[in-house]
Formats: sequence, structure tokens, C-alpha cells
Amino acid sequence: MADAPDLAAALIAENFSRDAGGVLQVGGLPLTDLAEKFGTPLFVYDAATMRRTYRALCAAVAGFAEVDFSVKANPNPAVIRVFREEGAGAEIASGAEFEAALKAGVAPEKILFAGPGKGTADLDRVVAGGIGEIHLENREEMVRVAAAAERHGVTVRVALRINPGATAQGGAMRMGGKPSPFGFDEEAMDAAIDAVEAMPRLRLVGLHLFAGTQGLKAETLLGQWAYGLGLAARIAQRTGRALETIDLGGGLGIPYFSGEAALDLGAIRAGLPDLIATLRADPRLAGARVVLEPGRYLAGPAGLYVARVLAVKDSRGSRFVITDGGMHHHLAASGNLGQIVKRDFPLAAGVEGPEAPRAATAVVGPLCTPLDMLARAAPLPPLAEGDLVAVLQSGAYGLTASPTGFLSHPTPAEVLVEGGRAEMIRARG
Amino acid sequence: MADAPDLAAALIAENFSRDAGGVLQVGGLPLTDLAEKFGTPLFVYDAATMRRTYRALCAAVAGFAEVDFSVKANPNPAVIRVFREEGAGAEIASGAEFEAALKAGVAPEKILFAGPGKGTADLDRVVAGGIGEIHLENREEMVRVAAAAERHGVTVRVALRINPGATAQGGAMRMGGKPSPFGFDEEAMDAAIDAVEAMPRLRLVGLHLFAGTQGLKAETLLGQWAYGLGLAARIAQRTGRALETIDLGGGLGIPYFSGEAALDLGAIRAGLPDLIATLRADPRLAGARVVLEPGRYLAGPAGLYVARVLAVKDSRGSRFVITDGGMHHHLAASGNLGQIVKRDFPLAAGVEGPEAPRAATAVVGPLCTPLDMLARAAPLPPLAEGDLVAVLQSGAYGLTASPTGFLSHPTPAEVLVEGGRAEMIRARG
Repeated sequence: MADAPDLAAALIAENFSRDAGGVLQVGGLPLTDLAEKFGTPLFVYDAATMRRTYRALCAAVAGFAEVDFSVKANPNPAVIRVFREEGAGAEIASGAEFEAALKAGVAPEKILFAGPGKGTADLDRVVAGGIGEIHLENREEMVRVAAAAERHGVTVRVALRINPGATAQGGAMRMGGKPSPFGFDEEAMDAAIDAVEAMPRLRLVGLHLFAGTQGLKAETLLGQWAYGLGLAARIAQRTGRALETIDLGGGLGIPYFSGEAALDLGAIRAGLPDLIATLRADPRLAGARVVLEPGRYLAGPAGLYVARVLAVKDSRGSRFVITDGGMHHHLAASGNLGQIVKRDFPLAAGVEGPEAPRAATAVVGPLCTPLDMLARAAPLPPLAEGDLVAVLQSGAYGLTASPTGFLSHPTPAEVLVEGGRAEMIRARG
Repeated sequence: MADAPDLAAALIAENFSRDAGGVLQVGGLPLTDLAEKFGTPLFVYDAATMRRTYRALCAAVAGFAEVDFSVKANPNPAVIRVFREEGAGAEIASGAEFEAALKAGVAPEKILFAGPGKGTADLDRVVAGGIGEIHLENREEMVRVAAAAERHGVTVRVALRINPGATAQGGAMRMGGKPSPFGFDEEAMDAAIDAVEAMPRLRLVGLHLFAGTQGLKAETLLGQWAYGLGLAARIAQRTGRALETIDLGGGLGIPYFSGEAALDLGAIRAGLPDLIATLRADPRLAGARVVLEPGRYLAGPAGLYVARVLAVKDSRGSRFVITDGGMHHHLAASGNLGQIVKRDFPLAAGVEGPEAPRAATAVVGPLCTPLDMLARAAPLPPLAEGDLVAVLQSGAYGLTASPTGFLSHPTPAEVLVEGGRAEMIRARG
């Protein structure tokens, strides 16, 4: 995966394929047929890739943690359902995500609610619905959750989200946590524990630590998890009770750019005996359910964003491929979702032979703004009106993380491929 | 307007007001009442500000140009209607924007369609609907428009969008145009003219030049407009016919950040006699309708994005105000809509006395991502749960330019205030 063309080719080899004619295949179905049948632009997800990814991660962390799905990465109920069928619970961040998880068949007690700004309406909804656990992020929210519990006459299981007093540097956690709106600062953890314990409607059962995003190094993740176990032990010590859940967050990354390597699950596996020993050594932690709740890692690789070429323009030495898809459906690929430096997602042509000559190509969308670029210099074969372009790694933070109303084009359809069949899981428009 | 607090205060003084108790007023209605009645988060637009802005711009360019409204800035039909009532036509960028303009009462012949990736379905819709003019951006599109005209048995009025061979540097245009997906390169203009002239279903009536966005200097805009007149003369000379329209684009900016000054309409006015003389001197241009089609400039100042405080958290020396609004409704304010350097939009508290002590405050939204910041260090008075925060300059590229599906919160309502009444022009959810 040394550079961009290799990353795209490697990802296609891993999760998709091409037939003898060079046509990209999703779960055995030609992308050309899918684009014809469902129209473009289009999001296509491969259920087999999701299942394979989920199982591989579960196998790597077996004996240490269970794996839930973070719904915000892709809230389509059909996508959540795939992971639910594999055994995943759901981590949600809004009332509507609670509904999506229920619709996907997730049992409410297997749902966790996190997020720094939970409103009263959402809290009422999830408390009434019997949610498994709510993660408390600040004092005002603690009071609001207790009030919701009081209104519904129930006791609510809660966890404290902690903003660690250390940050990951390489594999270790070093002192010097950052200011953050998320959770309680570690320095204020004891006071927060005492405040929860004083609220009869709240039952403190767990810890939630989310120490970073898009982690591609095993040692960094292992260091964060070890730190989380230490925080968990402090909570259990202060309450004097065994902890029931330890949510170590998501944060498992996937390669998007030239030069990025995939997370090494073997290295994760190799680092777990120490963590398992730590858990077993503390009777207050030994029985806890340790949870990882990635979203991007599970759903990202399974998705393609597919657009059709409308025109090809050579302008002053640069080639622009103008497509019907763009930033309004895939903000992250356009480089406008938090990227400091804009780099190209892996892109591929819908039909492409192994020997096709490639040239750096700008791929732009239909919007009247220079921001609407899906790639600045993607190595692509010659393309013409009617050809297909696919953006890889698009199963997470794609459609729902994008400004779909921008210039009022219809929203794209979403299609799930499974068992040789393609099902439309969200209609166009 | 020297720094951020002054910019917010100056904008409130110009377009809004505060009552004796410090309550922000929109068109004479207290923001606290609007938030109570319609809920938060909320977009509020003041029709009187839109009308005043429109009239001031029309007065400044009187005798030179007419002013249309670029729908992409805010496609709510109630907003378009305000400008239509003032006499504006509409510039659209999609079939759905055509529908929105029609719904607002804009006559189809007063609608212009621009954008680098116009699809066949959209072209069929606008051609069938009798659109005034379609701006051609590339060869494939030229053929597609001609085919749509053929299908509907009509002749379509078209303009050529030109990517200038020069860029604005200060007030002048200097050689060295950039590669661009938008329009035909100036170097290829003659060939494009000849190609259109060879298509019997297309009638070449105009030029479209869009040379930049967010222009705050009068001399830059005047330089671009002068350049546009030169291009227009070349088109008319080649066709041997008088030009009917000269669309000089939008690109008029508004101040968003500390240190930015508003566009000086007096300086615009002072520069126009030369341009008017140029037009009058060329019999092929003298009768042309010159059009400016700003969106941001007209709608931006009239809008507020209003959120309610859910919690206030002090973390390691930083204060975070956590609100129910965020980047999912206002991507630009979060700094993720093309900004290279993230700077804070002008923010104000819903209730704030002139003598309130201010401190640099981070204002964040409810999403589980550090990207969800409405301000990094806005000078705000002390705030508590339940207080209101308003983001100014939010009438353009707000709701529809934002990833409303991100974390699946309900979309905010939009409210238009006019004549002392508040009308909900888009329902929540």
C-alpha cells in the first residue's frame, strides 16, 4: 500500500474484485449493473465485507472485549442489522439513532447512549425504551438523566465518560490531558462519582473512555485501553462495587490515504494477555463486560460511493472529470470533514484493466463551488461521459455526514449487496 | 469592526437590535420568544434586512446592472419570494432549485441555470418549464442541452460560461488564468462560440463570468466586471449579433471574521460610470441586460442560527459551552466548509447587556466529534443551561450547506420574520 493507486488496488483485491473485463464487482455483482439498475450517484455496501471485518476484529480481541457498532458511522438500519446479526450491540448518539437501532432489531438493553449534548426529548425516549446504559458527560446532563429516570419511575444504568489526564504518545499514555467538552476531566472523576452515587435514580455501572479517532497503530490503542482499565479500577474502588461495563470506545482507523497501513490485528492480539491479566487480577473488574464500539472500522471498507461521468474537460494542463456525484454526498472525500491537508481518498474507475495507462486526474462534482472535488490528482485511466468512478472506504461517514441539501440535488440511493442479491435500503430523492 | 466582539455588535446594530433588557430582537420580535415558540436549534431570517440589502445593492448598481438572487445560498421558497417581490430573478443550479424558484413565484423566463454538471433529467425539467437561459459549461453539456431542446421541440437561449484567462490581482485582472472545471477556458472561447452557433436548437444570447467568491473589495469586483464586458464584446463580435445578457456572477462578500470590513457600495457606485460608458460605446452591448446574481451578500446578513445551552464545562483552563446546535446545521460556522484557517463567525448571547463581562468561550455542539465547534474563542458573557447563543451572518450557506443527517438529530425549523410576525417556513424534523 505504498501509494495511492496501490491503496485502491489493494482495497479492491481485499474487499471487492474485478472480472475478466475489468468490471468492478461488489459481492459478485457488476458495478455497471448496479449503477444501471439503481441510478447514480449511489452508495453500495457489501454485507460480506462487513461480516468478515466484524468477525476478524472479534477474533482478535476474543477473551478481552466484545465489539458493538457505533451507529453514527452509518445509521442505515439495514447496515446496523448486519452487525446485529453478527452479535453486536449498538452505541448511539441521538434519539433517532436509538430508533434506527431498534428498527434493526437490536435489543434496547444492548444499546449505549453517548454524546456531549443529550437533550431532554432524546433522554425521555431512550429511558422510556429501556436503554441499556447512558454515558454521562457533564453535571447538567447528570441531573437531566436523573430527572428523566424520575419521570419514568425507573433506575437508569449509567457510566461516566472520562476525559483522560494523559494523551497517547506512541504506545504510552503521557501526562497532560487536553481540555475537552467530552466527559468529565479525570481530575474531577472522584467528585463526579460521588455526585452520581448521591442520585437514587442513577446506578453507576461503568466507565466510558474515548481517547482518539482513526487509530492505525496497535500500540496506541493498547496503551489507551490499558489506561482505561486503570480508570475503571479507580471507579470500582471508590464505589466499592464491581464494575459491570468498561467501554473503551472506538477509534480504530482504516487507511484512507497513500502511505497509510491498515491496523495490525495480530499486534493487537499480541498485546492483550497483559490487559486480560490486569482485569483478572482485580475482583471488581474481573466480571466486567469490556466493550469496543468502532463504527468506521466496521462499516468503512464495505462501502463504495459511485458516480457517473458527465463531462471531461482539459483546462490549462489539468484534466477535470466532472461527475454527477460530489461533496454533497461525500464531504469527507472532498477533504472538508476536518482534514487539515486535503488528500485524495482511494478512487477507481468502474471498468479498468490492469494495464490501463493512468494519469493524475481531478474528479469534481456538479456543484458551483471549487470545494466540490472528490479527488485532486487521482491516478485514473482515461474516462469519458457515461463511465463510472468509485470512491473506496465510503461505508462510514459518507451519506449522513454530508450536506445532502447543498444545491438541492436528490439524495443518492443506498444499496446493500448480500448473497448475490442487491437490495435498495434507502430510496433516491 | 476591528475585532470579533465589535463585528458581532456592529452587525446586531445594523440588522437587529437589543431591547432595554439586552434581549436580541429580530424584526422587532424578541429572540427568546421565537426560541420558545419554535424550539431550538432554529434558523431565523429577517425579511426587512433582506429587502434593505437588496435595495441598497440595486441602488448602487442602478444604470449598470440588475440584481438576481442565487438560490443555492438559501433555497427556501419563502426567502426566494422576498427577493422576487423586490424584482429579482433567480439563478439556479439544479432542477430542484428550479422548482423552488417557481414555487416562490419567479417567472421561468427570469431564471438562469448554471453549474458544471447539469444532468439530463434536470435539463429536461427546465427546458420543459420554459427556463430563461442555460449557461453552458462544457462540450458534453452543450450536446445534452441541444438534445433536450430537440426532445421538447424548442429553441433554448444559452450563454457561455467563460473561465477567464486572467485572475484578479488587486483591482486589475492580470494574465494567468487558472485551470478550472467551470466553463470554457477563454482560450477556447471562439471554438465554443462556433460550436454553439452550429446547433440550430441553441440560441447564443449571453456571457456568464464568475471570477471569484466572497469579494470584499470594490476594486476587485469592478476589475472583474470590466474584464467580463471585454469578453462579452468578443462574443458579440464573433456572432455578429447584439448580446442580450451579460451575467457577471455573484461573488459579493460579507464580513465573517474579525478585521473584515463590509463591501463599500459607494466605491462600487463610483467605479460604474466607466463601465457604463464601455457598454454604451458598443452597439452590440448597449442593449444587453447586465446581471449580478449574488446569494450570500443578499441573504447572509439577514439570518441567525440560534442554539440553546445544554451545559457549561470548565476543562483544564478552557470553558466549553455545549449547545443543542452545531456543525450538522451550520458547517461553515464550524470551519469545515472550505476554510483553510478556522476562525470564529460572529456570535452573540441571546440576552446580553452592554456592560456584560466577556471571556473567550468555546461553543460546541452535541455531536461526538471535536469538529463540532461553533466557535473556538468567542468573546461571550457568562452563560448557563437554558441560555441562547446566536450565530450571525447565517442566512446563506447555512442549513442546506450542512450535514443535517450527521448523528440523525432533527433538522431545525426555519422562521421568517416580517411585519412583526414570525412565520415557520420549514418545519422541524
